[in-house]
Amino acid sequence: MTNTGTNIDINMPKLKRCADYIRYLSLECIEKAKSGHPGLPLGCAELGILLYRYILRYNPKDPKWVNRDRFILSAGHGSMLLYSLLYLAGYNGFSLENLGAFRQLGSNTPGHPEYSLDEGVETTTGPLGQGFANAVGCAVEGKILAQRFNEENFELFDYTVFALMGDGCHMEGISYEAGSLAGHLGLDNLVAIYDANDVSIDGHMNITFTEDVGKRYGAMGWHVEHADIGNIPDVFAKLKKLKDMRQGKPKILILKTVIGEGLNKKRNTPDIHGAPAGIDEIVFFIRHSEIRDIFEKKYGKEAAEEENRLSNIMEARLREKKPLDDSESAAFMREILDESRQVYDKWKQKLEAYKEKHAEKHDVLTKYLEFTLPEKLQTKLLNYEHGKPDATRGISGRVLNLCAGYLPQLVGGVADLAGSTKANIKEPGEKEIPYIQRDMFFNRNIAFGVREHAMGAIGNGLALNNVMIPFTSTFFTFFDYMKPAVRLAALMKLNHLFIYSHDSIYVGEDGPTHQPIEHLNALRVIPGIYAFRPANDFETAFSYLYFLQHRNGPAAIITSRQKVPGTGYPTSNSTDRQELYNQFKKGAYVFYETAGTNEPDIILSASGSELPLALETAKLVEEKDNKQVRVVSIPCMELFSKADEGYREQLFTPGKPLVLIEAASHRSVNLFYDPRIILVDIESFGVSAPGKTAGEHFGFTVDKVYQRIKEAL
Amino acid sequence: MTNTGTNIDINMPKLKRCADYIRYLSLECIEKAKSGHPGLPLGCAELGILLYRYILRYNPKDPKWVNRDRFILSAGHGSMLLYSLLYLAGYNGFSLENLGAFRQLGSNTPGHPEYSLDEGVETTTGPLGQGFANAVGCAVEGKILAQRFNEENFELFDYTVFALMGDGCHMEGISYEAGSLAGHLGLDNLVAIYDANDVSIDGHMNITFTEDVGKRYGAMGWHVEHADIGNIPDVFAKLKKLKDMRQGKPKILILKTVIGEGLNKKRNTPDIHGAPAGIDEIVFFIRHSEIRDIFEKKYGKEAAEEENRLSNIMEARLREKKPLDDSESAAFMREILDESRQVYDKWKQKLEAYKEKHAEKHDVLTKYLEFTLPEKLQTKLLNYEHGKPDATRGISGRVLNLCAGYLPQLVGGVADLAGSTKANIKEPGEKEIPYIQRDMFFNRNIAFGVREHAMGAIGNGLALNNVMIPFTSTFFTFFDYMKPAVRLAALMKLNHLFIYSHDSIYVGEDGPTHQPIEHLNALRVIPGIYAFRPANDFETAFSYLYFLQHRNGPAAIITSRQKVPGTGYPTSNSTDRQELYNQFKKGAYVFYETAGTNEPDIILSASGSELPLALETAKLVEEKDNKQVRVVSIPCMELFSKADEGYREQLFTPGKPLVLIEAASHRSVNLFYDPRIILVDIESFGVSAPGKTAGEHFGFTVDKVYQRIKEAL
Repeated sequence: MTNTGTNIDINMPKLKRCADYIRYLSLECIEKAKSGHPGLPLGCAELGILLYRYILRYNPKDPKWVNRDRFILSAGHGSMLLYSLLYLAGYNGFSLENLGAFRQLGSNTPGHPEYSLDEGVETTTGPLGQGFANAVGCAVEGKILAQRFNEENFELFDYTVFALMGDGCHMEGISYEAGSLAGHLGLDNLVAIYDANDVSIDGHMNITFTEDVGKRYGAMGWHVEHADIGNIPDVFAKLKKLKDMRQGKPKILILKTVIGEGLNKKRNTPDIHGAPAGIDEIVFFIRHSEIRDIFEKKYGKEAAEEENRLSNIMEARLREKKPLDDSESAAFMREILDESRQVYDKWKQKLEAYKEKHAEKHDVLTKYLEFTLPEKLQTKLLNYEHGKPDATRGISGRVLNLCAGYLPQLVGGVADLAGSTKANIKEPGEKEIPYIQRDMFFNRNIAFGVREHAMGAIGNGLALNNVMIPFTSTFFTFFDYMKPAVRLAALMKLNHLFIYSHDSIYVGEDGPTHQPIEHLNALRVIPGIYAFRPANDFETAFSYLYFLQHRNGPAAIITSRQKVPGTGYPTSNSTDRQELYNQFKKGAYVFYETAGTNEPDIILSASGSELPLALETAKLVEEKDNKQVRVVSIPCMELFSKADEGYREQLFTPGKPLVLIEAASHRSVNLFYDPRIILVDIESFGVSAPGKTAGEHFGFTVDKVYQRIKEAL
Repeated sequence: MTNTGTNIDINMPKLKRCADYIRYLSLECIEKAKSGHPGLPLGCAELGILLYRYILRYNPKDPKWVNRDRFILSAGHGSMLLYSLLYLAGYNGFSLENLGAFRQLGSNTPGHPEYSLDEGVETTTGPLGQGFANAVGCAVEGKILAQRFNEENFELFDYTVFALMGDGCHMEGISYEAGSLAGHLGLDNLVAIYDANDVSIDGHMNITFTEDVGKRYGAMGWHVEHADIGNIPDVFAKLKKLKDMRQGKPKILILKTVIGEGLNKKRNTPDIHGAPAGIDEIVFFIRHSEIRDIFEKKYGKEAAEEENRLSNIMEARLREKKPLDDSESAAFMREILDESRQVYDKWKQKLEAYKEKHAEKHDVLTKYLEFTLPEKLQTKLLNYEHGKPDATRGISGRVLNLCAGYLPQLVGGVADLAGSTKANIKEPGEKEIPYIQRDMFFNRNIAFGVREHAMGAIGNGLALNNVMIPFTSTFFTFFDYMKPAVRLAALMKLNHLFIYSHDSIYVGEDGPTHQPIEHLNALRVIPGIYAFRPANDFETAFSYLYFLQHRNGPAAIITSRQKVPGTGYPTSNSTDRQELYNQFKKGAYVFYETAGTNEPDIILSASGSELPLALETAKLVEEKDNKQVRVVSIPCMELFSKADEGYREQLFTPGKPLVLIEAASHRSVNLFYDPRIILVDIESFGVSAPGKTAGEHFGFTVDKVYQRIKEAL
């Protein structure tokens, strides 16, 4: 009778009633909101109860418990199921009032679940397939923590990650990518459940999705089981078996369900996927459900009998804030709370004992669980110098390894371009990259393969718990392949570091498919992510420092393929590194200025590898035209656009001609640019040619920029 | 001895020599360019010859022949293989000089193949998995053309589409999505060839990719064969079998190859995947190859014997423009030209006979092959009126169907949101959408399933031939899932129409995951695509008209979920529709103006569903503050930013306050905006709430915009 025992008798009458109550809650709240997706909650109500009542290990009083089992609703549109379960399971964040505010402004019950560990929502889902890939990330984290910290008699980390997927999740390529990698890594702490109701928004699956999903997962090295929601004991037995089974394979339960179960005409139809059921269907449901007695008690036996009166009752209910209560269902779900608490306390005691017995490891673990930036690392990043000319991707690789030396929780990987983006952790001189593999989770590099999208979402999964610090990396042009995951990192404010190299036409010979043009500004318009495009050694180190200090969302570090000069300190500025970093944090700073000037005649600004071009051109203008110049480096446009106006005007003196040099498209938005701006950008696709030639072709030479300036002034 | 016969003896000695010549060409040209990917060309040289010499049906003198077999190099980094084959097969576009300019500015031999039907390059590849999905699109087109036009004894369309995929292609989610749909549709005119060399950039496949690819394709309903490149007769037999087999299943040949075949130390290593082999390896190759005699003849027997001398010879060769010639290999490959020509002529004669026998169908076919915009349709679009309030997605659906009535080649579909985006073709009153299905290719809607990425690339595949006019559609927020395909459509200038609905926070209850914020400007910075965000009925119709007239690249039509007023004609403007369209083509036009004004006190501009807000606010300013106002509608920012300066200034009178209202992020780039601009945009993620509430929350009300204006002035 617990969620942790082995000999469990399922109380079928109580489960059935509770399932119908969950169905009713979804129907009422969705009807009230006049929008939502009842299909999944109605089809998976029993499954949800099995999980939260009999299978999952959790403590609603400490939702963030690091060794809890995770449940991820990858089919996020079925959010009412999750909210209902969290309410019934006793999570403080979810009351009936919260459920009644489904899809309303400011509620914690939005249309799709939004990441909130405090309330038991493990991740934001909705965009299909993402949640499943997040779950793969959580499972990797589980493996890492287990292999690094578990000791004999101290199985501190043995949690299981569950993900509920719909047909849509399976159709998305990201789920294939994530599933393939999960199979390769042998993540046997992962259980996927496929809500196989064979219906999506546009119709039954026979119009578009007829593959053999079990065989597909088998091909990827998964263990596959089948069950039918009509046979609850079997579903329970399979879930239990899959949870316990640790044989080097991730596991999937293909569960036949019926979308809209309990309804009349809309049962098993696409109509119920994504729209309220309608009063008639709700009335039908109530009259044929296990919770009919609640209505009889509340409104009289006859009221519950007559369709018209029930219909009027429902109309009235929809105007109320709080949905119908069923204390029996809540009591049933919460019967396990005591025992759950005992399991939780026992784990806490074990952790205390671990502290005694494995003091050193416990220390390390504490550093994982309570992040502080090591002061030494901070100092080193602040004073980082590389000096000689190098590509910023190379510098980034060195800085990453510097950080890795202090932060064992820093793990990540590359989508089959590790040698190119330099985003790998290894000892100096080590030739082979030590990869995380099946049973080798003490390593720190994940060979993601050419699976950018899953990489992004698995990285997000690694970040969810706020224990690991993940980085993921590929060519900047392939940011496109993983954008949906980057967006979710920004939306969830995950501390996930994206490292993108080969950032412009200077990629060269690989040609237009491999040369980012629009990506820089496409990234900059995403809310909540900071895009750093460092120009040299210290800007690269500062970008890492900012990410590690800021800890309130993702950052992208965008690096060059080609070498940039060893620029050293800005000539006109303080060599006080702290002061320089303070300016960097405002997104831009004066890199060079004609000695003694206050009011320059012209300002040249640039980001990344175009900074030296701005500097050289400025010096030409200074010399040849005897003008006073200022060069502004803009490593982070977002920070600069949020800096106080005084600082912005200090750099971009109003009224003065302002050159902006970026090998990136500012197309169409430049329509609104200040007329004083001389924009040197790229508004077509690139060319296959050596990088230098490509740069010349697009006018990125001192002569051509100088000419542009002369024409404009 | 032909590429079309049935009893074929393969001339093994000639094939071997030609294969080594192809290897050598790749080695020399890549070495000369100091960059490139020799691994695949070396591993697949024999395969390429089998295809172009014995399997494919084509006519190098008419590369666009509509019934040619297609060969798509999905693993685009192996471009030197394709260029070598096209040169040897006798395509005019490829000479030895062209090959010698590999990866140089302006050459037609760029790092990755770039779409050029005139030269035999079927599509742009490089971003992995895209080419394969394009091939699926080509196969769908083949089925459509066959089912619509073939008649007894007139099998006009029976071409086969081949796609060569690497390990990387298979790891990408897009290939899974496309493969799953291809299996569902039973595309038995499609043959994938998997270059299974088990090596990618970062290492051998055992570090990341260990699934059973054959089983995976089996699960998706494909016919699977295996072969080893070491057994050429077997590879040939399998290719022939798969080409001929039409049993309702797409087919894949899993071909074991050796990356870098023919080299010494780098054979079968990741080192040869993406970097020049180096002189030593080339020297080793020559000495052990079938083309050693060329060197012996050219440079003397001893020269070819001695490594040092060969090394010097190679160094010298690399400074030459033209790579080594081998007339024997070219002659061997071109032996089939005569018979190819006969096959081609026969088809042309058949087409003539078809014209006699099936005159009506021939007429229709001609309209497919030689597009002209029907005048009636043009007139109807020009004068389109819907009148009453409706969402622009609904108007878009009507306009799409209007176009469909005149353009049978218009086909497309939606990623499981057909009821929402309204992008489906059906008769008025028809309830069910008539879907293209296995053997039902006379229909016009493809149920893409929740496979946005493959949808985009399959749509590209449908557009490649410039015969069909494809449209694809989903929610605007899921543009992210298909961005890599949109980029390629823009790069290739494909006439592919992207229809995105639910374009802003007005999506409402579905919440931030489903509300586009950054997408509008992320789309606008892509070169070569026109993003239209129509505000009403005629702007929607004009967007379609522009796309159909322009015919030089993709367009995106971005529509609202919520209703917009039935705005009718702009009050201050001509009711001459042609004149209005002329203005629309400049991207923006005056929608309203205070009567008699020349110099407005303030200009309010907006796109899409924010136009009514601009109008109402303007009228408030006009009335309350007695100011002269102008309202500018900007349906297409890209067109407006390219309009002549005079027109731009006519609308945005310099020096006047300019309000820009868009429920979209202009974050960070607004740093460079003209100080006169009052920007009403959204720079955070959305909220789950009814659309109207969300709009109010973000300040999109007349009162709040009015207040912003008052504060700024």
